Amino acid sequence: MLVVMKANSSEDQIQRVVDKIVELGFKPLPVPGANRTAICITGNKGAVDEVIFLRMPGVKEVVRVTKPYKMVSREVKDEDTVVDIDGIKVGGKGEPLVIAGPCSVEDEKTTLSVAQALKDLGIKCFRAGAFKPRTSPYDFQGLGLEGLKILKKVNQETGLKIITEVMDTENVEVVAEHVDILQVGTRNMQNFSLLRKLSRIDKPIVLKRGMSATLTEWLNAAEYLLMGGNHNVILCERGIRTFSQHTRNTLDLNIIPVVKDISHLPIIVDPSHGIGRRDYVRPMARAALACGVHGLIIEAHTTPDLAVSDQAQTVPIETVKGILEDIKIISKLPQVQNIN
Amino acid sequence: MLVVMKANSSEDQIQRVVDKIVELGFKPLPVPGANRTAICITGNKGAVDEVIFLRMPGVKEVVRVTKPYKMVSREVKDEDTVVDIDGIKVGGKGEPLVIAGPCSVEDEKTTLSVAQALKDLGIKCFRAGAFKPRTSPYDFQGLGLEGLKILKKVNQETGLKIITEVMDTENVEVVAEHVDILQVGTRNMQNFSLLRKLSRIDKPIVLKRGMSATLTEWLNAAEYLLMGGNHNVILCERGIRTFSQHTRNTLDLNIIPVVKDISHLPIIVDPSHGIGRRDYVRPMARAALACGVHGLIIEAHTTPDLAVSDQAQTVPIETVKGILEDIKIISKLPQVQNIN
Amino acid sequence: MLVVMKANSSEDQIQRVVDKIVELGFKPLPVPGANRTAICITGNKGAVDEVIFLRMPGVKEVVRVTKPYKMVSREVKDEDTVVDIDGIKVGGKGEPLVIAGPCSVEDEKTTLSVAQALKDLGIKCFRAGAFKPRTSPYDFQGLGLEGLKILKKVNQETGLKIITEVMDTENVEVVAEHVDILQVGTRNMQNFSLLRKLSRIDKPIVLKRGMSATLTEWLNAAEYLLMGGNHNVILCERGIRTFSQHTRNTLDLNIIPVVKDISHLPIIVDPSHGIGRRDYVRPMARAALACGVHGLIIEAHTTPDLAVSDQAQTVPIETVKGILEDIKIISKLPQVQNIN
Amino acid sequence: MLVVMKANSSEDQIQRVVDKIVELGFKPLPVPGANRTAICITGNKGAVDEVIFLRMPGVKEVVRVTKPYKMVSREVKDEDTVVDIDGIKVGGKGEPLVIAGPCSVEDEKTTLSVAQALKDLGIKCFRAGAFKPRTSPYDFQGLGLEGLKILKKVNQETGLKIITEVMDTENVEVVAEHVDILQVGTRNMQNFSLLRKLSRIDKPIVLKRGMSATLTEWLNAAEYLLMGGNHNVILCERGIRTFSQHTRNTLDLNIIPVVKDISHLPIIVDPSHGIGRRDYVRPMARAALACGVHGLIIEAHTTPDLAVSDQAQTVPIETVKGILEDIKIISKLPQVQNIN
Repeated sequence: MLVVMKANSSEDQIQRVVDKIVELGFKPLPVPGANRTAICITGNKGAVDEVIFLRMPGVKEVVRVTKPYKMVSREVKDEDTVVDIDGIKVGGKGEPLVIAGPCSVEDEKTTLSVAQALKDLGIKCFRAGAFKPRTSPYDFQGLGLEGLKILKKVNQETGLKIITEVMDTENVEVVAEHVDILQVGTRNMQNFSLLRKLSRIDKPIVLKRGMSATLTEWLNAAEYLLMGGNHNVILCERGIRTFSQHTRNTLDLNIIPVVKDISHLPIIVDPSHGIGRRDYVRPMARAALACGVHGLIIEAHTTPDLAVSDQAQTVPIETVKGILEDIKIISKLPQVQNIN
Repeated sequence: MLVVMKANSSEDQIQRVVDKIVELGFKPLPVPGANRTAICITGNKGAVDEVIFLRMPGVKEVVRVTKPYKMVSREVKDEDTVVDIDGIKVGGKGEPLVIAGPCSVEDEKTTLSVAQALKDLGIKCFRAGAFKPRTSPYDFQGLGLEGLKILKKVNQETGLKIITEVMDTENVEVVAEHVDILQVGTRNMQNFSLLRKLSRIDKPIVLKRGMSATLTEWLNAAEYLLMGGNHNVILCERGIRTFSQHTRNTLDLNIIPVVKDISHLPIIVDPSHGIGRRDYVRPMARAALACGVHGLIIEAHTTPDLAVSDQAQTVPIETVKGILEDIKIISKLPQVQNIN
Repeated sequence: MLVVMKANSSEDQIQRVVDKIVELGFKPLPVPGANRTAICITGNKGAVDEVIFLRMPGVKEVVRVTKPYKMVSREVKDEDTVVDIDGIKVGGKGEPLVIAGPCSVEDEKTTLSVAQALKDLGIKCFRAGAFKPRTSPYDFQGLGLEGLKILKKVNQETGLKIITEVMDTENVEVVAEHVDILQVGTRNMQNFSLLRKLSRIDKPIVLKRGMSATLTEWLNAAEYLLMGGNHNVILCERGIRTFSQHTRNTLDLNIIPVVKDISHLPIIVDPSHGIGRRDYVRPMARAALACGVHGLIIEAHTTPDLAVSDQAQTVPIETVKGILEDIKIISKLPQVQNIN
Repeated sequence: MLVVMKANSSEDQIQRVVDKIVELGFKPLPVPGANRTAICITGNKGAVDEVIFLRMPGVKEVVRVTKPYKMVSREVKDEDTVVDIDGIKVGGKGEPLVIAGPCSVEDEKTTLSVAQALKDLGIKCFRAGAFKPRTSPYDFQGLGLEGLKILKKVNQETGLKIITEVMDTENVEVVAEHVDILQVGTRNMQNFSLLRKLSRIDKPIVLKRGMSATLTEWLNAAEYLLMGGNHNVILCERGIRTFSQHTRNTLDLNIIPVVKDISHLPIIVDPSHGIGRRDYVRPMARAALACGVHGLIIEAHTTPDLAVSDQAQTVPIETVKGILEDIKIISKLPQVQNIN
């Protein structure tokens, strides 16, 4: 249930609502928003008597939340969340953000040269994995801490914002110290211990959809983050697992308009993992942009065939350039409500 | 295996190759194409000795076909197939074709009024089901022959080309007499008796992908049509069945660039069945167009809430208008090889 | 809705109920059953006023049917259907029936010798395909009419009952003349024209589950058969299509207790197609038996490696012998209600 | 690659092989086994020159490993692994182990009473969750440390061995101190940080299959455990995610004979999560037993409808009793090689 305060409600009135929620044995969660003040009531098993709150001074209305998730829902916050990464905006009606970079952090020289080539195109945000989740224990597991240091250097030398994956609770602090955005990978979408820890840090999170996660499971995973206090969450569709074997995964663009309809969070797409083959990344990037995503995350390299991992799906720099040009054309499509 | 003739080979030389194939106990299939003459050898279990053909006069080269399907593959015919529906073209580099209309044929007056409204927007091709494949035997099964007559009348009064589904071998003739394009539905993609019969008629076929058909199964179903002599085949992606339940089906746009890469056949998309909800049809139509489809097939109605079937996914006429405007913008994306 | 008559109701009373249903514009369908007489009301969109029937003489009660399917449901007929194939029984609490034979009908001599070997084990029902649904048009499509004649001969020489697949409406009569049970294959589960035709013949039908059919779709396909008058329907689970690629299909034994709980129809399992590898057929057959199926259908051959099709999943005769021994042990498991 | 030593090879000869592997820049992993001594070579990208080892004294043979996983494969160790839990054996040809207990640890009194009721049936191993992975952050998350203490008490008072789930690296030690077996849940199957930590502890691990994990991914997850030194691994199939919605998950028994064929590790089944409904647990347990599993893990409670979580799929104590009786019958099925 959501208690919405009047525009001119006082701090004191808000506090009394919060106190009342605690007094009733529930947990109050403030909902951020430019346009209004609201407090979400959580921890209740069944319905709460709304009259208790309607009678309190400063309260405008009480809204029942019908979805299993609350904080991520437009029922609780209708206006689009715009995540701010040191001045770079993701979400709402702005231009889509393109994040690009190699699969893994490689040696410093290569990594810097890929970063510089992307920066020259106008890219503002750089991706590369220091900790790599690998199916086989015998595959390259990433450079770890050394990789984080290289990423820090990329940021210092190019000004590019950095995103990298964090794989466990023990590394949350060290990763957060070195990069600007932390990514939760598809295999960890329901690693609830990790989500709880990330909900308490002050950096934006990219939350990839689990390989076989339903919409409800995904939004509930995001709810763990918002509920713990971190509202800077970007959802990322990256392909699901189906019977279809002609592509590495089945990029599920169907979920884009649905998520935009029911959640205020920004949503981006990873066409590289989604389709898994270099030649097909640009058509899928176009498709994602056309159905309204807030950004893309693309595996790119100056010499894709020499990349340390994911060569097959890593595009050359000129493909990124092409996609940036595609954005200019596709951005001319008129906005139609939330869902496109 | 494919025997490619020289540009100046004589009819007699071609006939001798055909005779030799028959003599060896195989089946020769001529491959249509503006640029060259070629004969596909089918019916062989293992490899055929290519030297036999390389020695024959007029033969340019012999090409091994590595895919399980042959006639539908770019290995056998590299140039795009453009299907001609009485002057309306589908395929290749031309503008995407938009087919629209109600789910089912309704009474004559309503059907004509939907058709006229679509024609006024510039739509050239009309869809509506006379025979409806319904999960439950208690649901409306379509108007049957009466529906075909109404469709014929729509064609006569508006000039719109008509597409409708054919559900069994017994109705192939009567359907072919009344409409311009015959559709094979998702449940019949591997109804091989139906495919064999349709391979011998002189009307274009839209072949919908089966709900859980792999790429190979789909292209092999098309192969049944081409092998029997009908080369006017249009593939149609309409959503696959996955664990994902937030949409009616999971529209698999991933298959678009893959099909365009390996087959010369035109491919269109049905976003209405693909996503199953009216509000989300336009974003998915945009996505399909952006990744390079040759056309769309959309359930539309002047009064969608009063449609006899599929109300939830049927869009109003103005949405079709919006999609036609979207095409103008998206068509400005540069062509990049086959795959976008 | 279901109108249940009293045990001592007269023919005349029953007829009056039927007439009343017709008079109201609905369709009456008699429900066979040893223990009671009942008439199912179909063709109604919403609820029917039950009081009309409750007031009529001879009526015991009126039952609302909550499922989308009716005739196949235990709501309409609680007692198990036992299908009788010329004295051989399938369904209910009896011993499971094992159907075995090669994938395809082969030459007469081979086919007879496989049949004889199976008969010697005690097998009573023989399977073999005369019409084969093949993914590729270049693969062996079956012997057709010649195959049917060989099957007829097998029946005449060995007394084995014969089951074979029918692929289209045009062949229903000729297939029905030659064999004892007609099989609808997985690709034709929703070939509604075929189902309608089969609903009017007087032979038992084995209805295989579609590769991606839901429970509701499958039972509705069976409903087409029962609604048309053919109550001798045997369901057959044969593996579904999932992301899992370690076996040809994913045999879904989960559906066995569910079907037994909600439908009175017999259900058998095809472990050969379900798992797709010879070595694994017996463990899966055991699993199917243990969770309560009414029978098995197994691809078997005297020389599996020389079988014309499906060699990989065809078991030798001694595996069938082993499975017959397994049945004796597993049959000792106590019956627990419907579902095991 | 695997270096197999002769039966009478000396410690010194073995050490020289290990040293040679290290000298070549690879990693030697000793393979435990009663019948022979073998050393697995890992960390090599391509093929290693086998002649180097064949020439060394004490070496019997060198075996190439064709699978992506090594230590879990029968190529490396052919004999069945039997995991020993303080005298209780799982794996090989012995009687299947039944693990039972409530979904969550509840208050001490209830938990002890369920444990005692199960012990009275002859159950030797008790399950209950202290840390619960829950889709929604608002659902009961388990009793945590308090729950672990209750589990310890159950062990002390009843002698039952205890299994519980561990959800993150930070809790590995504390969980290991309180229970006998640690379970990795389906959502953590590819939590590689957790797997690495568990590979270094001295307690058996039950590794549940991920909801959409392929066979290769699952065995590779187990490989992380064995490679790190923990050879006491039990695989657990618990249902996969498919399009099928008539049951909570689709229990994939197909994987049982396949795993038994290619891996020496014991494999058990969780029919409760697999099918998700109380009435259907026993038929699925029977099916699992009949196709050859080494054990079952079942959610059971003295008052299932009052269970704190998973009521719908929790069986009463008498169902466990029935399953124990079923085992006696099913165990009479003859063993056929590895796969049944």
